[in-house]
Amino acid sequence: MKIALAQYSFHVGNFTANTAKIISAIQTAEQHQSELIVFSELSVCGYPPRDLLEFNDFINQCQQAIETISAHTQNIGVLVGCPRKNPLTEGKDLFNSAYFLYEGKIQQIIDKTLLPTYDVFDEYRYFEPNATFQTVAFKGKKLAVTICEDIWNIGNDNPLYTICPMDELIHQKPDIIINLSASPFSYVQAEERLKVVQANVQRYHLPLVYVNQVGANTELIFDGGSLAVDASGKILNRLKYFEEDLQYIDFTSATSNEVMNEPSFIALIHDALVLGIRDYFAKLGFKKAILGLSGGVDSALVLYLATQALGKENVLSLLLPSDFSTNHSIDDAVQLCKNLNSPYETVPIEHNFQAFLTTLKPFFKDLPFNVAEENIQARVRGVLLMAFSNKFGYILLNTTNKSEAAVGYGTLYGDMCGGLAVLGDLYKTQIYSLCAYINRNCEIIPQNILTKAPSAELRPNQKDSDSLPDYDILDKLLFQYIEKRQGPAELVTQGFERSLVDRVLKMVNSNEWKRFQTPPILRVSPKAFGMGRRMPLEGKYLG
Amino acid sequence: MKIALAQYSFHVGNFTANTAKIISAIQTAEQHQSELIVFSELSVCGYPPRDLLEFNDFINQCQQAIETISAHTQNIGVLVGCPRKNPLTEGKDLFNSAYFLYEGKIQQIIDKTLLPTYDVFDEYRYFEPNATFQTVAFKGKKLAVTICEDIWNIGNDNPLYTICPMDELIHQKPDIIINLSASPFSYVQAEERLKVVQANVQRYHLPLVYVNQVGANTELIFDGGSLAVDASGKILNRLKYFEEDLQYIDFTSATSNEVMNEPSFIALIHDALVLGIRDYFAKLGFKKAILGLSGGVDSALVLYLATQALGKENVLSLLLPSDFSTNHSIDDAVQLCKNLNSPYETVPIEHNFQAFLTTLKPFFKDLPFNVAEENIQARVRGVLLMAFSNKFGYILLNTTNKSEAAVGYGTLYGDMCGGLAVLGDLYKTQIYSLCAYINRNCEIIPQNILTKAPSAELRPNQKDSDSLPDYDILDKLLFQYIEKRQGPAELVTQGFERSLVDRVLKMVNSNEWKRFQTPPILRVSPKAFGMGRRMPLEGKYLG
Repeated sequence: MKIALAQYSFHVGNFTANTAKIISAIQTAEQHQSELIVFSELSVCGYPPRDLLEFNDFINQCQQAIETISAHTQNIGVLVGCPRKNPLTEGKDLFNSAYFLYEGKIQQIIDKTLLPTYDVFDEYRYFEPNATFQTVAFKGKKLAVTICEDIWNIGNDNPLYTICPMDELIHQKPDIIINLSASPFSYVQAEERLKVVQANVQRYHLPLVYVNQVGANTELIFDGGSLAVDASGKILNRLKYFEEDLQYIDFTSATSNEVMNEPSFIALIHDALVLGIRDYFAKLGFKKAILGLSGGVDSALVLYLATQALGKENVLSLLLPSDFSTNHSIDDAVQLCKNLNSPYETVPIEHNFQAFLTTLKPFFKDLPFNVAEENIQARVRGVLLMAFSNKFGYILLNTTNKSEAAVGYGTLYGDMCGGLAVLGDLYKTQIYSLCAYINRNCEIIPQNILTKAPSAELRPNQKDSDSLPDYDILDKLLFQYIEKRQGPAELVTQGFERSLVDRVLKMVNSNEWKRFQTPPILRVSPKAFGMGRRMPLEGKYLG
Repeated sequence: MKIALAQYSFHVGNFTANTAKIISAIQTAEQHQSELIVFSELSVCGYPPRDLLEFNDFINQCQQAIETISAHTQNIGVLVGCPRKNPLTEGKDLFNSAYFLYEGKIQQIIDKTLLPTYDVFDEYRYFEPNATFQTVAFKGKKLAVTICEDIWNIGNDNPLYTICPMDELIHQKPDIIINLSASPFSYVQAEERLKVVQANVQRYHLPLVYVNQVGANTELIFDGGSLAVDASGKILNRLKYFEEDLQYIDFTSATSNEVMNEPSFIALIHDALVLGIRDYFAKLGFKKAILGLSGGVDSALVLYLATQALGKENVLSLLLPSDFSTNHSIDDAVQLCKNLNSPYETVPIEHNFQAFLTTLKPFFKDLPFNVAEENIQARVRGVLLMAFSNKFGYILLNTTNKSEAAVGYGTLYGDMCGGLAVLGDLYKTQIYSLCAYINRNCEIIPQNILTKAPSAELRPNQKDSDSLPDYDILDKLLFQYIEKRQGPAELVTQGFERSLVDRVLKMVNSNEWKRFQTPPILRVSPKAFGMGRRMPLEGKYLG
């Protein structure tokens, strides 16, 4: 049986575009003599639809899309993801389903059993878990159809769940496992996914077709990388990462496709961020970005990534120097724009900063310069960037990194402004690694940006290290606390100094209120700030 | 059996304070010859602990608190809410439990069965549902101990669930139903809660003790209102709304306490908002608030509520007039401050606004005045308010209402700044109702503020009605779309014009990105913007 793996980017709620894309892929697959085409999880509405699932109208539009698609399945079987109403009054209103369409109609519906409800996932908020198991009979074969998480509890080894769908389906002696996924990227995900797919193949001695969604939906970046693996565990197809792709597999003729080399860890992060920016703009209907280019490493990296995503001519850098800005900051920023051949403008902030000091003089009197004046500078920059945004239709890119976001080292409504936080899930040390990767063949990001000491330049001779531990240590500690959820005792056992642990954990916990108002962050790690990390603002824990 | 109903405000993660409060209440109850004291759900750590539950250290501290509390239970039974580790490897890591402590040790643990996972609730993210049922034997009585949602599926009439804990427990012939709750306020909740409690009493013919948490944890306001109801459905105790309270009931001696009258709908909202402000400040350790007082109704109401919550001397109003501000706006604002005897300062923004126009002139050239210039004014106000905040330690209160937030009528980083959005869950028409309530005895909010046409005053003679439908119609439509999740066809059937429906739904859906960066909103309705309404930013649905 020739099967088409249809790895596409779906736009949440954009039924017209999604349906057209699905029908077009069906027609292409049919022209290639495919007998079956497999799409990703909830492809009809796009993943994740979130609370749009609570609107009857939304679910009705999903069902109408299924009817429209059905009309194109006379000669080809189609497995497509779509939510459906739970016909019983008991339990959640919906199932997360795979529709099997053939000969112009719905032949069978398979519901998802394991509903991820952790980190960025809220599936039990919407869906009732499946509890009955039936393979799909098609052209003399039996297909074991599963949805995403359903294959992530192999032989019940995942402590989150008490049932293993494939252990149930295997009793019906299926010929192949098919999995419709919407599995978001993190830098460990491609490896984890391959492990899980291989483990299923080994346990059940069956070939497996795994089709993932591709494309970014704000915070979540879906990396694609769909797979066809034969019963021996050999990878016959691995679809592209971060791009739409349509490939074919026929396990019976056993032709092995040329499988691409796995990209490096850092290349995956690079490509994820570029796609994250590109799709945010494309899906919201924007074309042009703006950012404040300080001469520091974070904004340099954002500029580079934005030019890759949107085209160098569509990204405007504003250089916003103050009297505390060093000459090399301006020179470095200019050099980067020249290297990238990307436009910039220089807008000194001193006039507006002084105007605020004048206005505030009757109230501030002779109180010493402190964080208030530092923040005014950052906020003047915010006002100027947003003025360009409003006047000319640019979307402001935020340049905050994960280390800063963690400890609250940033000015709310100042450098924390923006529509999208490009680097908010990368620690400062990871930023440097990514820059080194970008410079691997030639110097794109000027070397001086990478070697000078990080500084906010909001007061004379300021350095990040004045108020923060060295990033080498800070980032390791933050990783253990945020990604690994280690408590103070565990961190001290790991060798971190007690006073540093107390200080850093207090900074992290007491800045939840600030992170609450952060723009959406492109998620590249297994634990990003944002929808996957939900903390009480008013909590008083380790702080 | 004399039972103490312990209705307290718990601070999430503040184990020292929570444990001390619990022990103190136990001692008081013991002095009053109580045999049993009942606390609210997850009282040891405070509700909702959210992802702090994922830290082993946090769970260990919960367990240590239980041990500390146990030592004070030699002579009195204690039911206290606390998370506990799931001893099995299968299933979620934790249970949401009620600990029964007596004679200095843990006698029994009851786990929650029904785990709300909708709106603001994420309990299945953390907890495994209970599946075994056992009453608590104490002093010759059998207690049917339930936790919050457990009594909200009476006889399985709630379609979300497939099990009814009391239908199981009733087989063991309990003498009383006890419920530990953390049930957040909305303006329908007190009535709903009473209905549910009465329905349980009627179905099982048992007295019921219901103990709710009180106090606000950022967005969620817990209203208390704990209840003791006898088997006939008579309310014997109703504890205070929005205040800590400790009351006693002895069903055998059948002494009926004097039950307070139910406050009006609007009085509940008023008290909820005051508590919401007060606890936000108290729990984060702040004392003083600042806000921009425009002369409009929203900021007037916020000022009044803040003075009630924090004391009139702890709230500073900034009048920030521009050349577009009308004289009556300034006069009205001043009059309100005088009525409240609350301090204000006047800081005209024209100088800073013009300074930005000068800076931007080389780029904006002769382009016409538009939303860019409007927003600069709002953002200048934001910078000035935040400068006061940073210099003097005020927390900025946000004055956005739900109608504006819904349609995106507000300036990000301008009037959308602030630590807490006091009115973000009240439609504009509800704002007027609340002002009328506040003015019920004498004119506190000047009449002129309530009668003039709403205006942002960001360009000459601007009125909200220039760009928005009348609030009377807009609010009704928004309510049907947001609270009731009605789709376009249903809204037209209800009598709204098709063009208006399309326009308003598009405004709501295309402003998710803006609401993403809104401060936390005090929740008073069953469907507030914030943690209870999770929408894709990049979605393309009805917009």
